[in-house]
Amino acid sequence: MLNFTFCVPTKFVFGHGVEKETGRELKALGAKKVLIHYGGGSVIRSGLMQTVTDALDAEGIAHVSLGGVKPNPRASLVYEGIELGRREGVDFILAVGGGSALDSAKAIALGIPYEGDFWDLWTGKAAPAARIPVGSVLTLAATGSESSNSAVITREDTREKVGLNHQLNRPVLAIMDPELTMTLPPYQTACGATDIMAHAMERYFTNETEVDVTDRLCEAVISTVIRAARIAMKDPRNYEARANLMWAGTIAHNDTVGVGRLGDFASHRIEHELSAMYDVAHGAGLAVIFPAWMRYHLETGHNIMRLAQFAVRIWHCEMNFENPAETALRGIEAYEGFLKEIGMPITMKELGARTEDIPELTRRVRRSPDGTVGQFQKLDDAAIERIFRIADR
Amino acid sequence: MLNFTFCVPTKFVFGHGVEKETGRELKALGAKKVLIHYGGGSVIRSGLMQTVTDALDAEGIAHVSLGGVKPNPRASLVYEGIELGRREGVDFILAVGGGSALDSAKAIALGIPYEGDFWDLWTGKAAPAARIPVGSVLTLAATGSESSNSAVITREDTREKVGLNHQLNRPVLAIMDPELTMTLPPYQTACGATDIMAHAMERYFTNETEVDVTDRLCEAVISTVIRAARIAMKDPRNYEARANLMWAGTIAHNDTVGVGRLGDFASHRIEHELSAMYDVAHGAGLAVIFPAWMRYHLETGHNIMRLAQFAVRIWHCEMNFENPAETALRGIEAYEGFLKEIGMPITMKELGARTEDIPELTRRVRRSPDGTVGQFQKLDDAAIERIFRIADR
Repeated sequence: MLNFTFCVPTKFVFGHGVEKETGRELKALGAKKVLIHYGGGSVIRSGLMQTVTDALDAEGIAHVSLGGVKPNPRASLVYEGIELGRREGVDFILAVGGGSALDSAKAIALGIPYEGDFWDLWTGKAAPAARIPVGSVLTLAATGSESSNSAVITREDTREKVGLNHQLNRPVLAIMDPELTMTLPPYQTACGATDIMAHAMERYFTNETEVDVTDRLCEAVISTVIRAARIAMKDPRNYEARANLMWAGTIAHNDTVGVGRLGDFASHRIEHELSAMYDVAHGAGLAVIFPAWMRYHLETGHNIMRLAQFAVRIWHCEMNFENPAETALRGIEAYEGFLKEIGMPITMKELGARTEDIPELTRRVRRSPDGTVGQFQKLDDAAIERIFRIADR
Repeated sequence: MLNFTFCVPTKFVFGHGVEKETGRELKALGAKKVLIHYGGGSVIRSGLMQTVTDALDAEGIAHVSLGGVKPNPRASLVYEGIELGRREGVDFILAVGGGSALDSAKAIALGIPYEGDFWDLWTGKAAPAARIPVGSVLTLAATGSESSNSAVITREDTREKVGLNHQLNRPVLAIMDPELTMTLPPYQTACGATDIMAHAMERYFTNETEVDVTDRLCEAVISTVIRAARIAMKDPRNYEARANLMWAGTIAHNDTVGVGRLGDFASHRIEHELSAMYDVAHGAGLAVIFPAWMRYHLETGHNIMRLAQFAVRIWHCEMNFENPAETALRGIEAYEGFLKEIGMPITMKELGARTEDIPELTRRVRRSPDGTVGQFQKLDDAAIERIFRIADR
């Protein structure tokens, strides 16, 4: 087990009707003036925004709002939020929405006290040193951004999509009512489930041995999502399924299931280029890339036993002791079968991605300082391109 | 899933040699004068105390110390610590040791700012409102006290053993080096493993249905402990086994594996009277009580399917679909077999407890306001006595 530091200071308030507690919770945190940050009109039409602002008003907490967050949240809106937040002197940013609203809120929160261009923090030109506290009223089970240290922002002008992982990115409050996710279109529910599984899987596929506790926690989350997603796809108003998905989404990406090992995250990095180029949903992109990434390891014979463990423990494949690679393949096929079952694409074509873009996509994948991406195997240009080719079937 | 609030603000610094970071971590938390609280001479003989005080000295952090914490930590030492802490004006309490040092430290931390008798907070006469921050350099994988909201104190004069669960009991820092647990005697290692399993099992045995994620997280922790304890009993210096036990111990009792459901905790309440009356190790007492508690539910036919789930998912018993109670029984037997294998007692006799004390033990078990104990079934006097009788075989 590798040495680690772990601290998730987020207060989670979870369950039926908890959005009505927003005012009380923010007051306990000392908020005086809140910037409410959200996406489109759905949170207004659903009445959620009214509930939240009523709750703030009841506690005498002032608020301004900024809507318009899009999936793959844009730098341009972050600049707008920073300016608004400074002008209004806000002391808390409350995202009402999903991971996009949260990531955008995190960037605004770091940007307000930073004197330069906030993008410096994302490109590594400067290190975060201060932030305005962030909280959320979550409406989507997917990204885990409600307590993760991560925020991904896309620059429209350069089509760069960049994530920043930093302890200051961890929100202080997450208000989570599973009922708010019941009205999601099935495709978004499936994208969310795929993303949650991928977050646990990025941590599961490791070469660290004997981090048994983390392995089993990952398996717990992945197995929960498989079961709950199947229920939620058929019965969108099933509270228990929505609740299990929502909590699984949180712990899949706040490192509860990742301690003591290096996460891989090549699939996330590779996928980011798909969603940046074609503006497709992140979960759908992962459904295309993650199985291809697994097939690449099978092809190159890397750590077959871990792929087999995934097949046996998650998909209940029978272990083929004479030919573990065959078991590994059946695990990948079971995973692909599940993705198809919940309506996800598993090929580049289904996603609308073009074969001729593969060299450019490969070139764009953001590398680690050594020029590779990932930890399970460090992937160079040829490996990344091969993964796109496997996905382009 | 029941509504819940969950917040573990503890910063975990985990791995090889992290005790050398104690000074830097405390400095980052703003500590100026620390009360170091510990048990016997082992932390001095091992050199750990020297490492810790050197680390504090290097950062210019003043410190005083108070040793003498015993298993089942005593109120009398808490009074002493409160007086010392006030006199010296300490602003941080650092437990160096296991759960006993931590629980005692938590009581001192709440007692210093409280004007009355700290015992009022434990008996419910007054509610905690403030505390001095607490941290630990942990030397034992067992109680989870390093991040739990719980602290159990024993009054020598009345032989009362009482736990207080409160958010203010959560430490802000846990420094966890698995190597520090390698020199534990096998009996203590086994007691710790038994306690960790019991913490997850107290949360596992619930009548809430469809809290799938929490079920699976509990199973992850219990399965980890079974595997790691077997390795650590045979090979005490196995770092990976020690690391898995240590982290499992933390998450088993800080509610990571308990959200969305009521924990039972009858076995803990019942056991507390055994360890208070005979001064036996808490883990050993749990090894006697928990299987008896399970046999009681089997006897009364309560939620057999949950007992069967425990048998199938934890102990890999084959499900007997015609007779789930038979599967349940095999699960209990497998659990007892494991406890015996690691050297735990499983009967009152082995523990040195007397049959004739059963009525008095029953009378002493601390009840909830409705006069019962537990949630899986609410146990009245007759039920508690029956559990002692089952254990007295």
